[in-house]
Amino acid sequence: MSPSYLDLVRQCDNFPYYEDSPQLYHDTKKHFYEFRVSDCDRLLGHIPTSVIDKVQWPECWIIDHSKKTATLGSGSPDTAAVRTRLLATTMHQMAQMNDFPILRGWRNETFPVYGPGGDVLLEIERSGSALFGIVTYGVQLTCYVEDEHGLRVWIGRRSRSKQTYPGMLDNTAAGGLGTGRLPGRAVIQEAVEEASLPTSVLTEGLQSAGCLSYYYIQGSHSGAADGLLQPEVEYVYELKLDPNTTPQPGDSEVEQFNLWSVDDVGNALRKGEFKPNSAIVLIDFFMRHGILTPENEPDFLEIVSRLHRRLEFPISTPL
Amino acid sequence: MSPSYLDLVRQCDNFPYYEDSPQLYHDTKKHFYEFRVSDCDRLLGHIPTSVIDKVQWPECWIIDHSKKTATLGSGSPDTAAVRTRLLATTMHQMAQMNDFPILRGWRNETFPVYGPGGDVLLEIERSGSALFGIVTYGVQLTCYVEDEHGLRVWIGRRSRSKQTYPGMLDNTAAGGLGTGRLPGRAVIQEAVEEASLPTSVLTEGLQSAGCLSYYYIQGSHSGAADGLLQPEVEYVYELKLDPNTTPQPGDSEVEQFNLWSVDDVGNALRKGEFKPNSAIVLIDFFMRHGILTPENEPDFLEIVSRLHRRLEFPISTPL
Repeated sequence: MSPSYLDLVRQCDNFPYYEDSPQLYHDTKKHFYEFRVSDCDRLLGHIPTSVIDKVQWPECWIIDHSKKTATLGSGSPDTAAVRTRLLATTMHQMAQMNDFPILRGWRNETFPVYGPGGDVLLEIERSGSALFGIVTYGVQLTCYVEDEHGLRVWIGRRSRSKQTYPGMLDNTAAGGLGTGRLPGRAVIQEAVEEASLPTSVLTEGLQSAGCLSYYYIQGSHSGAADGLLQPEVEYVYELKLDPNTTPQPGDSEVEQFNLWSVDDVGNALRKGEFKPNSAIVLIDFFMRHGILTPENEPDFLEIVSRLHRRLEFPISTPL
Repeated sequence: MSPSYLDLVRQCDNFPYYEDSPQLYHDTKKHFYEFRVSDCDRLLGHIPTSVIDKVQWPECWIIDHSKKTATLGSGSPDTAAVRTRLLATTMHQMAQMNDFPILRGWRNETFPVYGPGGDVLLEIERSGSALFGIVTYGVQLTCYVEDEHGLRVWIGRRSRSKQTYPGMLDNTAAGGLGTGRLPGRAVIQEAVEEASLPTSVLTEGLQSAGCLSYYYIQGSHSGAADGLLQPEVEYVYELKLDPNTTPQPGDSEVEQFNLWSVDDVGNALRKGEFKPNSAIVLIDFFMRHGILTPENEPDFLEIVSRLHRRLEFPISTPL
């Protein structure tokens, strides 16, 4: 049976909710150690117990097996730079173990981990962020045309050579927010690079339209290790294009762009042809634009709340 | 100090989150009995312990003081009609006690309570719904104009004689969803009645734009009893109006409508001049329309997730 829109949302937001089943919530958490730093009392992420068991943790870590916490700290109050360096050393050591395939994709690009006041507590190598279950951030852009043919959406097909989700359908442009990247600037940069859109068109028409947040337990689908936690935030943007402005693949990320009717996008969504977190951005787009309504989508309310999950970690936007 | 947008959101969504503090979450719950019916295993609402203690519960109720549950049922499998009748009898009895001021506003209008499959389990007299802490549903419409003066919003001022929030600022139209009212039809009806908008304009331009959900612990501000729980869902709609189409008060609900600039709406929001759940609809509108962005609103992420809280009860849209 083809997946419902709620099924697609559940593929991204599949960490159990406490209110649904305290038992299942706690049972799921039992497979993880809390990732913390010594100078902050907030939970920052989760490390699978299997990872805890495999690594010989250097002395900058306090691993508490009764509380199931892994706390990073030098022993004295740390700066972000110190924590980042300590963590990088640990991750280089993990990369040499060959037990963690995702670290083979080492990118020399970091993601920020925020504290409760919005300050960056540390940075973490992007390829290994899921090993620590920290919140990651991205941007997604949906370009559309509205004319006598109704509303149509510019859909990209991912390059067949991409490591993740090759050949699947995608939004017009998207990207991860490495340390220091502002969402509004990052989405313009991605749209220029991936879709060859003119900066002037983007600057003039780009509209911030909210954000999605969800809590994903990574399975084998992404080609990476099983059972990692990935709480994610996606800032969503939209841009109404003149029918004469055509996105064109600008790098090796995208194979081609096509202008799809709402019905065609809906059919492809239900066939599972979209990259999962691009699918939910389109579902949110359909809700903002009155295409999915309380009357025609039986799971309307559940979808809306699960697309905007409140994460249990400090989250912030770079300043 | 004037409230931030997040403060305004917190005024509506003020029930604690388990993930923030399990202790506070459970301490808050201790003041309530779970409202259940005998033929369904889901939690449907909450009744304050003070209410439990005051009422002589008829025999159609099983009050379990150790589990802190209040379960409605005839003893054999019930229909919705039977449950509705049993509950109405109890509420009439409560109304005669004079202990529950909100029941003095008896409206002979019911709200539906949904089961997990979307079927109506029972109906409950609207004026007393907060005594049982069930989810209530409403619609809100924001009308706006976009021309050479930028985006402006049609803001209403509530009648000074209204029982709730007299004289405060409000959205263009709004209303509660009594049993059987479909959101898309209800919002048109409210806009015709309250704002005198032509049905043809509404039918042509009205756009469903998602929904908000939040979990409110009622204080004294609404003029009703303290400490009642009100989980709420608001279906949100927007309508772009021609500058020549002017909403006009159509009944005694609204004193006047004015076309406000985004800056003026923002200033009035920060002065606390809006009815609280109208304020958050405008904040959501500002986020959908790129007026509040990740770069200019420091609490962007927290606001978005708290405006779309996942409620712990079965929720549904009438069919």
